[in-house]
Amino acid sequence: MADELKRTTPVTRENMIREPILAAAVELFRNHGFAGTSMQNIATAAGISRPALYYHFKNKEEILRSLVEVVTVRTQREAARIASTAASDHAELLRAVVFSHAVSLLRHPQHFAVLQRDERHLPARVQALQEKAKRELFDTFSDLIRSGISAGVFRDCDPVVTAFCIFGMCAWTVQWFKPGGKMTADKVAEIIADNAVWMVRRSGSARDRNPASWLAVIKDDLAHLERAITHKGAVKRS
Amino acid sequence: MADELKRTTPVTRENMIREPILAAAVELFRNHGFAGTSMQNIATAAGISRPALYYHFKNKEEILRSLVEVVTVRTQREAARIASTAASDHAELLRAVVFSHAVSLLRHPQHFAVLQRDERHLPARVQALQEKAKRELFDTFSDLIRSGISAGVFRDCDPVVTAFCIFGMCAWTVQWFKPGGKMTADKVAEIIADNAVWMVRRSGSARDRNPASWLAVIKDDLAHLERAITHKGAVKRS
Repeated sequence: MADELKRTTPVTRENMIREPILAAAVELFRNHGFAGTSMQNIATAAGISRPALYYHFKNKEEILRSLVEVVTVRTQREAARIASTAASDHAELLRAVVFSHAVSLLRHPQHFAVLQRDERHLPARVQALQEKAKRELFDTFSDLIRSGISAGVFRDCDPVVTAFCIFGMCAWTVQWFKPGGKMTADKVAEIIADNAVWMVRRSGSARDRNPASWLAVIKDDLAHLERAITHKGAVKRS
Repeated sequence: MADELKRTTPVTRENMIREPILAAAVELFRNHGFAGTSMQNIATAAGISRPALYYHFKNKEEILRSLVEVVTVRTQREAARIASTAASDHAELLRAVVFSHAVSLLRHPQHFAVLQRDERHLPARVQALQEKAKRELFDTFSDLIRSGISAGVFRDCDPVVTAFCIFGMCAWTVQWFKPGGKMTADKVAEIIADNAVWMVRRSGSARDRNPASWLAVIKDDLAHLERAITHKGAVKRS
């Protein structure tokens, strides 16, 4: 993958402190729901004092906002960045966007699982943020597919259903992927990205875009099809 | 799709009576969980008397067993039946198995959603039934992919991750598909099955195999050619 298509997550000192707190909060949300978890519970689970917790997150809503930020907003921002790079190869752009989304899920499976399960219990403003980022991420995927179809690189598939298929391939990993197993998160994300590209790429899409050559290919295919049907008929009759 | 690959759900008189009861129960499970729903609640919601309900289901466990039967066991049985048919074309077998699984989900989205969310709250014996059917369904998918790879029809992909990708494409429909919208459940299931086949098929291998796949390739080529000509025409006129 070209350097400009690679994921770049800023590792700031603030992130290094906030992420373990968020992980502790996610574990509590998973077992007791958003409403059943207090700031005191989170401080205790993270092994820090209440004032220290309030220094990093001024209330629970801010922790939930941070969860949405890590799981959805950051992925959306990264996908938009990749999709807007100068690279003109649609297949490589799709591969990079899917890899980026999948790897983010695979590295934070519990964050995603809890958000998916309890999305409707989020505070209204956080839910709106989540909805917006999800919609934009979906649009990035479907627009990229549409644009690959127009360019003749992708086959004539349904861009909406296909974008949902790719989302599903990525999202389902939280049901089966076990971190620390024989496959790394990066390896699984690579396979998923590869599968997504195969799913949409035209066979022989390197094919000349000149209509006359296309026509020749179609004629050739029709001849083969005719032979196959005639052959079948012959076999049946015998 | 060949007749023998088509789904055959037995429509018995008993099923016709049990299914509306099950639908009413699913609606209650969705809002109140398995534990929070009583036989009385189900009878009321289904508009029948308690004795009538007990005539069809002797207790709540049997209703949950029936839910697992409709969502997972029946799909698994159907997939195993298709996979064992005499048809030798791996792509067509995979298409039929995926279609059958997807259409079952798309026709019972709420049944599946409630089962997926609250699986761990099922009574132990019902949970064991669900786990077994899910594992067998997964094995049917991954074995079919493995066998297509050995036959040289499918590309050298990872059969396990790819089977999970296909599961995810199907399962995610419960997050977005709205029954009664502009696309029918059958149409969406067809697109998903088609996407699954494209994901694993070797480029060009379809050509030496079956007429339906050829036809898909030719149609795709024609659509591209049409777009190219229309686009050229538009440019010329301007």
